[in-house]
Amino acid sequence: MTDRSEAILPTFDDVIVAHERIKPYIHRTPVLTSRFMNELTGAKLFFKCENFQKAGAFKVRGASNAVFGLSEAEAAKGVATHSSGNHALSLSYAAGQRGIPCHVVMPNTAPEAKKAAVRGYGGLITECEPSTSSREAVFAEVQSRTGANFVHPYNDPRVIAGQATCSRELLEQVEGLEAIIAPIGGGGMISGCCLTLSRLAPKMEIYAAEPEQADDAYRSFKAGRIIADDAPVTVADGLKVPLKENTWHFVSRYVTDILTASEEEIIEAMKLTWQRMKIVMEPSCAVPLATILKNPATFRGKRVGVIITGGNVDLDKLPWMNG
Amino acid sequence: MTDRSEAILPTFDDVIVAHERIKPYIHRTPVLTSRFMNELTGAKLFFKCENFQKAGAFKVRGASNAVFGLSEAEAAKGVATHSSGNHALSLSYAAGQRGIPCHVVMPNTAPEAKKAAVRGYGGLITECEPSTSSREAVFAEVQSRTGANFVHPYNDPRVIAGQATCSRELLEQVEGLEAIIAPIGGGGMISGCCLTLSRLAPKMEIYAAEPEQADDAYRSFKAGRIIADDAPVTVADGLKVPLKENTWHFVSRYVTDILTASEEEIIEAMKLTWQRMKIVMEPSCAVPLATILKNPATFRGKRVGVIITGGNVDLDKLPWMNG
Repeated sequence: MTDRSEAILPTFDDVIVAHERIKPYIHRTPVLTSRFMNELTGAKLFFKCENFQKAGAFKVRGASNAVFGLSEAEAAKGVATHSSGNHALSLSYAAGQRGIPCHVVMPNTAPEAKKAAVRGYGGLITECEPSTSSREAVFAEVQSRTGANFVHPYNDPRVIAGQATCSRELLEQVEGLEAIIAPIGGGGMISGCCLTLSRLAPKMEIYAAEPEQADDAYRSFKAGRIIADDAPVTVADGLKVPLKENTWHFVSRYVTDILTASEEEIIEAMKLTWQRMKIVMEPSCAVPLATILKNPATFRGKRVGVIITGGNVDLDKLPWMNG
Repeated sequence: MTDRSEAILPTFDDVIVAHERIKPYIHRTPVLTSRFMNELTGAKLFFKCENFQKAGAFKVRGASNAVFGLSEAEAAKGVATHSSGNHALSLSYAAGQRGIPCHVVMPNTAPEAKKAAVRGYGGLITECEPSTSSREAVFAEVQSRTGANFVHPYNDPRVIAGQATCSRELLEQVEGLEAIIAPIGGGGMISGCCLTLSRLAPKMEIYAAEPEQADDAYRSFKAGRIIADDAPVTVADGLKVPLKENTWHFVSRYVTDILTASEEEIIEAMKLTWQRMKIVMEPSCAVPLATILKNPATFRGKRVGVIITGGNVDLDKLPWMNG
């Protein structure tokens, strides 16, 4: 899939419908502030804590919107995806809430803990070899056998509309925000921010934060076309995937800038957040704070919304352990 | 000091005064719930999150009450304590808020990180040898040199009245609580619960949770007199200290029962809370959940307040790392 594929875009009406639809299945997550972090950065930071979200991440918003938007006939066949991360958990959770099957194709090399987590939410795992060709073949087989509805982790307009409810809530919770910053991987969350803010707060700056070692979105943004990396290596393992046409549409039009941080800066910011704010969050969520600390002049004096995207972390493999 | 020393007891009026006095310097911390934890335990748990408290622990309540209750003349000479834990941080924070010196006597063997944390809050450290005799000699010297007001970590009536504001808040935040559970070390927090609840909710059950490996409060409770251990070893390092006459007064009269948990159970409960509730808390805070899981019949079906006492943990030395 390239940036020449035709984008299928959600509208802001879809966001309103999504928000009504998913409300029974998600938390309206709290917004935390920290005097320490404000003094450190010179900004006024408002942390939107999707680590406290159902299934541990914002992904449940988009997954629930897709699942609960299906007709009865569609729903009966279930949903399917390929993911070994938060999307797999979230889709399994949402399907469980509707009482329909969720098929998840995962590489047989995925850690046992991740498989157990997906199964814990009721997901039905089919294993594939750890290659794109095997994943596609196995996924095609699962889908043709079950007729399940494919819910892409981020390039699906239903998913983008669902993720857009996060920034909509944040606007309701905090007055006078001047900027928002979120991590960027495939671009689902950032696209949701763009969709909401371009309608409700068009002057607000939108920053995407990315690991230097997986900076395909940064390079795409500068080049004006999607550049995909093969196999980036970063502790922020939720952010390795490339942009696709639907998310590129939003990123290329509405994002103010993409900022990057090194692995060391990400780990330092993650540790600092755990120490000072006492919250458990994934390495991906630390990328925004790392870039704020790296670019103080961009944020100083501003009221900035910071999306903490998820809290599903392997406590036995924290990034500062083996470093 | 034995249980025959004369207790100097705070009253509930002292709690009301303390609460007014310290409000500008503390957070009204949130109460979190978790469907997962409720299903796991069969109880309805309400977690009072003092890990989000100023200086990272409930101890700031008692410390602030002591500091802001001093006359101008007393305050000018500052405050002093011996502690290498949360009380040292909290007293330093509170003294800093009032703009007075805080002298902290710490063993020269204390980890550099703890010294740095106390200094970070403005505390003035005087080191002693790691023995009781050295600590007492050095502390006496500091106090006679400075005239500073001694604020004991838990046996001070001003401190107990301050800690009592925590359960008072919890009663305001959650209706119909039937039991409360908190970790017990020296007994400051539990005494505060007793002081508040014996007045406001005398039928509520009060449970204290203690590590098996530092179960001096449990044994004291069963024996009817203070039994102090010499040097208990537990991951719950905030709970090693013994009861003293003021806290024994409350514990012996108002506590329903003292429950204990093994090191493994404590670590498992700590990890579970981090994983499912996404909050950073100290090992001590996991003791209540560990004992609830161990004694399900005691709590099943009840609305239970659980005090999460603090979040100051060394991320480089998590208890499941070296195990």
